[in-house]
Amino acid sequence: MTESLSTPSGKSGLPPGALIHVGDVLETVTSISIIGYSKEHFAEQKIQSIDEILKYKESDGVTWVIVEGLTNVDIIERIGTLFGIHQLVLEDILNTHQRPKFEDYGDYLYIVLKCLIIEDEQFAVGYEQISLLVLDNFVFLFKEKKDTLFHALEHRVRTSKGKLRGLGTDYLTYEILDYIVDQNFVLIDSLDDVITSLEDGLLESEPTEDLLYKLQRLKRELISIRRYISPIRELLAGMLRSESKLINDNTHLYLRDVSDHTIRVIELIESYREILTSLLDIYVSSVSNRMNEVMKVLTVFASIFIPLTFLTGIYGMNFDYMPELKWKWAYPLLWVVFITIPVVLLVYFKRKKWL
Amino acid sequence: MTESLSTPSGKSGLPPGALIHVGDVLETVTSISIIGYSKEHFAEQKIQSIDEILKYKESDGVTWVIVEGLTNVDIIERIGTLFGIHQLVLEDILNTHQRPKFEDYGDYLYIVLKCLIIEDEQFAVGYEQISLLVLDNFVFLFKEKKDTLFHALEHRVRTSKGKLRGLGTDYLTYEILDYIVDQNFVLIDSLDDVITSLEDGLLESEPTEDLLYKLQRLKRELISIRRYISPIRELLAGMLRSESKLINDNTHLYLRDVSDHTIRVIELIESYREILTSLLDIYVSSVSNRMNEVMKVLTVFASIFIPLTFLTGIYGMNFDYMPELKWKWAYPLLWVVFITIPVVLLVYFKRKKWL
Amino acid sequence: MTESLSTPSGKSGLPPGALIHVGDVLETVTSISIIGYSKEHFAEQKIQSIDEILKYKESDGVTWVIVEGLTNVDIIERIGTLFGIHQLVLEDILNTHQRPKFEDYGDYLYIVLKCLIIEDEQFAVGYEQISLLVLDNFVFLFKEKKDTLFHALEHRVRTSKGKLRGLGTDYLTYEILDYIVDQNFVLIDSLDDVITSLEDGLLESEPTEDLLYKLQRLKRELISIRRYISPIRELLAGMLRSESKLINDNTHLYLRDVSDHTIRVIELIESYREILTSLLDIYVSSVSNRMNEVMKVLTVFASIFIPLTFLTGIYGMNFDYMPELKWKWAYPLLWVVFITIPVVLLVYFKRKKWL
Amino acid sequence: MTESLSTPSGKSGLPPGALIHVGDVLETVTSISIIGYSKEHFAEQKIQSIDEILKYKESDGVTWVIVEGLTNVDIIERIGTLFGIHQLVLEDILNTHQRPKFEDYGDYLYIVLKCLIIEDEQFAVGYEQISLLVLDNFVFLFKEKKDTLFHALEHRVRTSKGKLRGLGTDYLTYEILDYIVDQNFVLIDSLDDVITSLEDGLLESEPTEDLLYKLQRLKRELISIRRYISPIRELLAGMLRSESKLINDNTHLYLRDVSDHTIRVIELIESYREILTSLLDIYVSSVSNRMNEVMKVLTVFASIFIPLTFLTGIYGMNFDYMPELKWKWAYPLLWVVFITIPVVLLVYFKRKKWL
Amino acid sequence: MTESLSTPSGKSGLPPGALIHVGDVLETVTSISIIGYSKEHFAEQKIQSIDEILKYKESDGVTWVIVEGLTNVDIIERIGTLFGIHQLVLEDILNTHQRPKFEDYGDYLYIVLKCLIIEDEQFAVGYEQISLLVLDNFVFLFKEKKDTLFHALEHRVRTSKGKLRGLGTDYLTYEILDYIVDQNFVLIDSLDDVITSLEDGLLESEPTEDLLYKLQRLKRELISIRRYISPIRELLAGMLRSESKLINDNTHLYLRDVSDHTIRVIELIESYREILTSLLDIYVSSVSNRMNEVMKVLTVFASIFIPLTFLTGIYGMNFDYMPELKWKWAYPLLWVVFITIPVVLLVYFKRKKWL
Repeated sequence: MTESLSTPSGKSGLPPGALIHVGDVLETVTSISIIGYSKEHFAEQKIQSIDEILKYKESDGVTWVIVEGLTNVDIIERIGTLFGIHQLVLEDILNTHQRPKFEDYGDYLYIVLKCLIIEDEQFAVGYEQISLLVLDNFVFLFKEKKDTLFHALEHRVRTSKGKLRGLGTDYLTYEILDYIVDQNFVLIDSLDDVITSLEDGLLESEPTEDLLYKLQRLKRELISIRRYISPIRELLAGMLRSESKLINDNTHLYLRDVSDHTIRVIELIESYREILTSLLDIYVSSVSNRMNEVMKVLTVFASIFIPLTFLTGIYGMNFDYMPELKWKWAYPLLWVVFITIPVVLLVYFKRKKWL
Repeated sequence: MTESLSTPSGKSGLPPGALIHVGDVLETVTSISIIGYSKEHFAEQKIQSIDEILKYKESDGVTWVIVEGLTNVDIIERIGTLFGIHQLVLEDILNTHQRPKFEDYGDYLYIVLKCLIIEDEQFAVGYEQISLLVLDNFVFLFKEKKDTLFHALEHRVRTSKGKLRGLGTDYLTYEILDYIVDQNFVLIDSLDDVITSLEDGLLESEPTEDLLYKLQRLKRELISIRRYISPIRELLAGMLRSESKLINDNTHLYLRDVSDHTIRVIELIESYREILTSLLDIYVSSVSNRMNEVMKVLTVFASIFIPLTFLTGIYGMNFDYMPELKWKWAYPLLWVVFITIPVVLLVYFKRKKWL
Repeated sequence: MTESLSTPSGKSGLPPGALIHVGDVLETVTSISIIGYSKEHFAEQKIQSIDEILKYKESDGVTWVIVEGLTNVDIIERIGTLFGIHQLVLEDILNTHQRPKFEDYGDYLYIVLKCLIIEDEQFAVGYEQISLLVLDNFVFLFKEKKDTLFHALEHRVRTSKGKLRGLGTDYLTYEILDYIVDQNFVLIDSLDDVITSLEDGLLESEPTEDLLYKLQRLKRELISIRRYISPIRELLAGMLRSESKLINDNTHLYLRDVSDHTIRVIELIESYREILTSLLDIYVSSVSNRMNEVMKVLTVFASIFIPLTFLTGIYGMNFDYMPELKWKWAYPLLWVVFITIPVVLLVYFKRKKWL
Repeated sequence: MTESLSTPSGKSGLPPGALIHVGDVLETVTSISIIGYSKEHFAEQKIQSIDEILKYKESDGVTWVIVEGLTNVDIIERIGTLFGIHQLVLEDILNTHQRPKFEDYGDYLYIVLKCLIIEDEQFAVGYEQISLLVLDNFVFLFKEKKDTLFHALEHRVRTSKGKLRGLGTDYLTYEILDYIVDQNFVLIDSLDDVITSLEDGLLESEPTEDLLYKLQRLKRELISIRRYISPIRELLAGMLRSESKLINDNTHLYLRDVSDHTIRVIELIESYREILTSLLDIYVSSVSNRMNEVMKVLTVFASIFIPLTFLTGIYGMNFDYMPELKWKWAYPLLWVVFITIPVVLLVYFKRKKWL
Repeated sequence: MTESLSTPSGKSGLPPGALIHVGDVLETVTSISIIGYSKEHFAEQKIQSIDEILKYKESDGVTWVIVEGLTNVDIIERIGTLFGIHQLVLEDILNTHQRPKFEDYGDYLYIVLKCLIIEDEQFAVGYEQISLLVLDNFVFLFKEKKDTLFHALEHRVRTSKGKLRGLGTDYLTYEILDYIVDQNFVLIDSLDDVITSLEDGLLESEPTEDLLYKLQRLKRELISIRRYISPIRELLAGMLRSESKLINDNTHLYLRDVSDHTIRVIELIESYREILTSLLDIYVSSVSNRMNEVMKVLTVFASIFIPLTFLTGIYGMNFDYMPELKWKWAYPLLWVVFITIPVVLLVYFKRKKWL
């Protein structure tokens, strides 16, 4: 069974503004980690109740709150109340079928995008929706499930001494976006391997139905990937255009860098799409070529033996009056014909390059 | 018989400005429901004469007038007179072949779009044209026929206590638009099912003419759907750009949300179109593949038996002088040849991967 | 013989500014009708000499001059002199290979576009170039030939009491443009019929060369239609953008309406183009399918009878020592084989779904 | 041998700013003609030394200098020195692989474009690069070779009495551009003929390899033509946007006219490209169709005679015990079978529409 | 094995801001050459330690520093420190998977692009990333490896007397960019040769699998080339738009010239892509054509001899009562039939143009 490209509904009919988790449930328990840091301090904590965040509100460093699992709607709602987040934003966080976008709400920024993770050798891609709320001192990161995705980044924050620690939430946001976009390069490496192996398979051996199936599956996957990555370009352009006081001018340089990476990823994906399309054309050509070869074998066999069989037929007839049957050299002579005809035809086919 | 993509004329030649219902008559009787609400009050009523609306003109809440059925031109004309609606708008309401659009007439806004409803399992899509007139205190909704389409939304208004009741006609408009756009997700789910089953059918079993027919029908349907949904993006962009005093600044956020949904729907439709196109390519490849296989079977049979038949032909000849015929071991020896030739050829075909 | 897509030259090499009629001569005699109207008056007249127009110059109503036939260059030149029309405009009126465009010359507006008329059942489209000169009190309409094209519109002016009579030349211009654009819907209805019947023909019966021919001809026609209709969108956008005092603000609403119709026509044409393209793909698939079927029949026949013929060949040989020939049950036994082999093969082919 | 699409290099590695003729040498001798005119005067002269131009500098009419042949670099350099032309412009004049463009250097304008000339019946297109330097009183026209290309235009200047003589260099520039663009219509007429004949050939007779070759050559030619004509649109837009004092406001109208012609040419070329593409599709369909027919003939022959041959094989066997061989009516009866089987099969094939 | 389109990752997961060389190591030793010049002076030097540059800081001429090899990160870092280059720029210099871009950092400009070098006859393209840092008096050029790429340009600087020596770093930058872009024309000449030979091969001889392989490889290469060249257009547009004081107004003219060249290269590449695509179509047509021919040969042979063989089969039957067998003229008469049938069929096939 081919997997569905999208299961986008699930909420249609409900009033807008109702907080309900829409999407596949990937995690039933919601866990919250907090990383607080400033130039001098660093603190890390797992909390149970969202209200424990409140004490960080006084701190003048950056507090990074990582919420894993979206089924516990209360937590999201509570965050909304505590930090004055608009109802629509909360809804969007809970609905994991979002198109990547950036929205500036004055006091806070809302960013949502997909992180693409390659899941196995067969090039199955997993999508995890990441929502970011960027406030003056806080960065909230909402993920669909508990995994090790951001562990490397957390580690970097933990061990970083210099730059990162001294900068604000916008720089942390940049680091997160950069981290997510860079994941795509891993994806593209893997994609390159798969396509290259398909290409070799196609050009070197017999084209099989299985190859066709793989090509189609890959094309579908690419359509889907592009759909999630293309809007990230806009998202970053939006951040660069935005005049929010939450984004420092110095951070613009960094965001432009992420934007460059994104454009590179998009261009690569477009290139792969073109290559896939031309692979399909080559598949068709290849099948035609094989058929051509099969036809040639058939034609060579049939063209040589059918006339000969006709000849044997003639002298297999039982007419009373067939003078050749009595001739002594008739039979050996016929053998000469049996040998000459194929030789002539083979030379002819050779000239036509059918052999 | 394939159904027509469009029957757009029917009025050409008539003077512009003549009020005539153009389109298929889906309902012969026009019925009018009124829902009036404000923070404290709620009233619901079915009326016979359009003039009963007048009393709501005094009310300071929101009055939602739902007109179902467009054949009674007088009602539309009377509304036009009572609320000062431009002749062209009235014409557009009556002509059910409109392209989705938004127009700001200062005192009122005119919005027209199509609601897409999936009609059965075979993916037949129905289109109902919805026209909205948004005034300061009134929202007129014109539909082609009487159905349960908006019942869920009406119910929500009826039971809503908080937000909706306190807000103006622009918010109600948003709710209606959101409701219509969300219908499309149901459509797309259904579309996804149909395409997935086509795809499975194509990759797993023999490609049939029937599949080709379905592919073509689906492509046509998608072309048609896209034609009705794409302009909704513009429509919403127009509303967001508009500086009409009828659209509150706070409502912009909500409209942006509907706009995001619309873009997502459009992108999904584009994706499906690409998938359909590649399915057609795969269909062609698949047919070629099958033909290739048929050819191989023919070639294997013919190449093996034609030479053997020639051999039997030789010794079926009636020459007087054919020494082999007298040899005792000639016949068994020939059997050795009859067995060797096929074995050699089969090994050859095996190597060529034809078997 | 396929008709030419375009015969655009005919004047190259001539000095620009020379007044010469370029294009096919569709009418050798030029006839001029005048319709003058204001709120109270209405007059209609056919004139011989262009100077008879002069007396209408005093009138404060609208004078609509319809010039049919473009071979009498003097008339055009005289109009140019009398009303101060730029030489280039006069040239453009006489050259019937114009691209639709709108030009604002301050004192007058120049509009040129093509009216598309469906000519017969076989979907042959005729193009007539319509030029409009819009002055303060005058509207000149130049047509290539004398036909009934605008009779319906003339009739409407004649019988109209209200609106039209009271408004200026810009409103008459709108009525003319609306009338021309609405003709396209008739065209599209006809196009829809032709394509639908092609589609049915393709999916239901054997694909023929004739169908291919029709598809190609239709594609050519669509390319040509689109080339004439697409620029009308620009033309209207130009009129809406223009700040000419000749176009009243109230008329903008009406022009926007025509613009909407034009966009709808263009979108429909694009849809049909896509459908035609996919029909060609389906044609190819269909041919492949039929060939596949032919091949199967051949393969079934050949695979069944070729081995059997080989068997009969064996026992037709004339070896002295062939023990089977003496066996009493050999012949009936062979019949068993003759029946078994086909049955086995037929079951095999049935399984492969070739039967 | 297919001709090369482009030989663009030849100068890479050389310092920019070095005056060297780059391109095929089409003329080894450079000849200079001068046409000087004003409202009252007209003079025409062929000169040997470029310094003879100097005397025209005093004249207040327009001086049109036509330089044919670009190998004599000194002349170009001298013109550069005398009139203060930028080094880069001189280089561009000498390099005949320029992309059409317009550049405003304040004191003078530089325009370069390709004139396309149809060379023979086989639709071989020749390209000649035309460079224009437009000064206050001078127009320099540089051509690659000496031919009659501009003779008609020169003649028009010579004989013109009115308008042209009284206007400045900008109007002459317009006349030249108009003249060059109008050449393209001749080209397109010829193109139309070739494509129409190809189309007829394709739809009426057997598709040959030769046709394929012609299609491909034409496609290449169109790609090349479009590459040279498309930028002319930009070029003219640039002139219209430019605020150079060298271009009179009145000339704008004329340039817009040339621009309209260019757009029409570009649209026609696009249309032909689409038609060519669809012709290739039709070619493929056509080949498939023919193959289908060949297959049917083979299948009909084989399916009828192979079973019959099997029957004759049966009664050609030499079994001692074959009762049928003794029956008197066996042979005539077999003939009945020999006739029945083909009749039945022929009816079957007729029904399948294979005959 | 097909080579990978891209190996873009290698650094994902690392903190941004870490200076690490990312990309294939093409050179293990970093070498630095310095060319210092002004109107009067010229000096050339190879240095070991980057600090030797410092003395040039005082000079008021232009100092061109060429750094070959990127593995020695310390050198890059030291340059960064000495000249105040932003960390992100240093990173970008070290990462050889950059998209071409231009960035204005106020005190200096950063330009990165790819130089494309054709590597052998088989059209294998090599990419070398070139980074430029343009300061007031310094131009740093970073290359991946030590080769002779810029020797011609260095020579030109060395021998130049006039212009170049007197101008600033912006003009040197122009010379470098012009030099890199001009390399592409060599590439395109080579590309033209390869495609022309492919085209000839395709149209003149049998289409082989090898040709298909080459077409696909070329298409891939073109996709890749375009990806690196297209952004150069933007890069130059960025430089032209930039208001950096580092770019003199006079240099704009020169940059526009490079920009024109780049557009020409891009247009040529697009043209080749179209030609390649149509070659693939022609390949498919060509294979179909050949198959058609093979089928015709088979059909002619089979249709002629199968009926004849049936005839011989009839008179090879052993019925006791077959009157024809006794007739004296039966056998010669049959020979008449044996000759008549093929003649008739051959005429028939001739008419169908199968021979």
